[in-house]
Amino acid sequence: MLCWRKGTKLEKSIRNELISLLINNYDQFISGEEISRRVGCSRAAIWKHIEELRHEGYEIEARPRSGYRLIYRPDRIAPEEILPYLHTDRFGREMRYEPTTPSTQVIAHQWAREGAPEGALVIAEEQKQGRGRLGRTWHSPPQTGIWMSLILRPPIPLTDASHLTLLASVGVREGMYRVTGLPIRIKWPNDLLIDGKKVCGILTELRGEQDRVHYVILGIGINVNADVNQWPDDIKDVATSLAKEKGTKIHRPPLVAAILEELEQIYDRYLREGFSFIREKWEETAGMLSQTITARTTQGSVTGVAMRLNEQGALLIRTATGITPVYSAEVEWDAGGNRS
Amino acid sequence: MLCWRKGTKLEKSIRNELISLLINNYDQFISGEEISRRVGCSRAAIWKHIEELRHEGYEIEARPRSGYRLIYRPDRIAPEEILPYLHTDRFGREMRYEPTTPSTQVIAHQWAREGAPEGALVIAEEQKQGRGRLGRTWHSPPQTGIWMSLILRPPIPLTDASHLTLLASVGVREGMYRVTGLPIRIKWPNDLLIDGKKVCGILTELRGEQDRVHYVILGIGINVNADVNQWPDDIKDVATSLAKEKGTKIHRPPLVAAILEELEQIYDRYLREGFSFIREKWEETAGMLSQTITARTTQGSVTGVAMRLNEQGALLIRTATGITPVYSAEVEWDAGGNRS
Repeated sequence: MLCWRKGTKLEKSIRNELISLLINNYDQFISGEEISRRVGCSRAAIWKHIEELRHEGYEIEARPRSGYRLIYRPDRIAPEEILPYLHTDRFGREMRYEPTTPSTQVIAHQWAREGAPEGALVIAEEQKQGRGRLGRTWHSPPQTGIWMSLILRPPIPLTDASHLTLLASVGVREGMYRVTGLPIRIKWPNDLLIDGKKVCGILTELRGEQDRVHYVILGIGINVNADVNQWPDDIKDVATSLAKEKGTKIHRPPLVAAILEELEQIYDRYLREGFSFIREKWEETAGMLSQTITARTTQGSVTGVAMRLNEQGALLIRTATGITPVYSAEVEWDAGGNRS
Repeated sequence: MLCWRKGTKLEKSIRNELISLLINNYDQFISGEEISRRVGCSRAAIWKHIEELRHEGYEIEARPRSGYRLIYRPDRIAPEEILPYLHTDRFGREMRYEPTTPSTQVIAHQWAREGAPEGALVIAEEQKQGRGRLGRTWHSPPQTGIWMSLILRPPIPLTDASHLTLLASVGVREGMYRVTGLPIRIKWPNDLLIDGKKVCGILTELRGEQDRVHYVILGIGINVNADVNQWPDDIKDVATSLAKEKGTKIHRPPLVAAILEELEQIYDRYLREGFSFIREKWEETAGMLSQTITARTTQGSVTGVAMRLNEQGALLIRTATGITPVYSAEVEWDAGGNRS
């Protein structure tokens, strides 16, 4: 049997369809003939791809008359692992995968300048020079987390850019919640916590002019399968991982897919309806409302009760002298009062 | 006589000091010995530089026993022409001069990413692909204008970035007024007009994250000596040049220096004192306050009376139903009522 689509179909696409088929029939035999028919390629070509996958760490049993059976796949967040789970229109439809990289943000900025489409994603197994807010370093060890940067091109003025940080907090939280069911709460403006401990950080960077944003890079870092027991005590006090909280290892590709789906949905709704519904969703899951907090800004500290967000996404704090909007700050409060 | 600083002093710096000395003694003889002493270099080296300058279009008379006399200099905005007039601390202290370039903004973005210091300036005689707001093209013909991009690194959050557009409008206007005395008015947010006709456009672009601006590029384009009579009628109706309004050609280097000085002063004061004084200065020279205007935003049009700026730099417009802040818009009003 010859490959009827040969020459018109990209090798990469054949490979992705093959992996998708094997994953969807995980631990079950599927005949070489059926694979060949569904992927649209010769059995010899299928065999070649199977050999390649084995070389990359996939364990695939081959049995005469039964066919192939996927019994183990390596723990990777490569596009072919994510795509079988991904039901989005634009988000993650173009992907750059890096086994190791200095920083997904840096690659995404460059790609955006070169014209990357909206939804383009840079994802890495490991970052050597990961960055957090305000240029802080962000620890991104190999294969234990999700380190990714999503490129957006929202048609909004610069003054609305802070909406996107909050939008991202809500969307990423929903994707993580859908997969894990864990009680994740938002710390303004851009951290996700479980029981007061950081499990995810979001960094929103952009380039623009007053009238419009040219592009936004949402940098998302999630501690997924990190072995928290090996962390030093002072880190254990302030950070955790999804696996530690869930009590089981979490397969990363469906989590990436769920986050991209939730982000795309909430983003499209934001472009149609504006900021109000994000504010409501944010207020439902924020871990600090009605609490007494201290916000440290470059102009000094404000202590008071966190009330809600205003239309620009600033946090309104009620102090003895009135209500103060805070646009950018380090926020501290008694996370113990926040356990759920 | 040997050059005592030879080997320690850069050729470029010798050249700049020589030009500065000639310009400050324009049309007067200055002896080779005095030049040699003041620039700190041998008379042979001075002679070599004089020859080079002649080659570039400077006309310098040399007379035995009298010395050198500058009688004509080419119309350029190269660093050596600007520096003799420049009294700033940081602004323009590092300069990249391009006889012709696609866009000074593009070069400045790249330089900023590579770590250019605050105040670094890219300046060109001609732009082939000059840009205005919202990606519009900006006509930048050779040697008739000032096309430049200034790099700033203000320690402010992203929400305050719109302050810089207004700061730039006020600073550039003051520099232009100091040199020309012309009645220049500001059109919100970033155009400068004379008698309702555009003479200068300012484009503020930036890169940053929610908590801080990484860098800002102020792009400034000024029609200085353009021959307006050669423009088509429809352009003549909406734009003008300083030379046309002043009735005489304007030497560009001192104008560049005056603008950089005013910008540095106002910028430093902004960092010390905040936005209020800029708002006041802006309101003094804005050409649209108390007028009925129409502001076209991406969400539709607002027609009403332009009142003042709010703390974020938004224009407050009083309509039949209340006061609306406008953060980004195209503004139109009857410029005829604005003549001074």
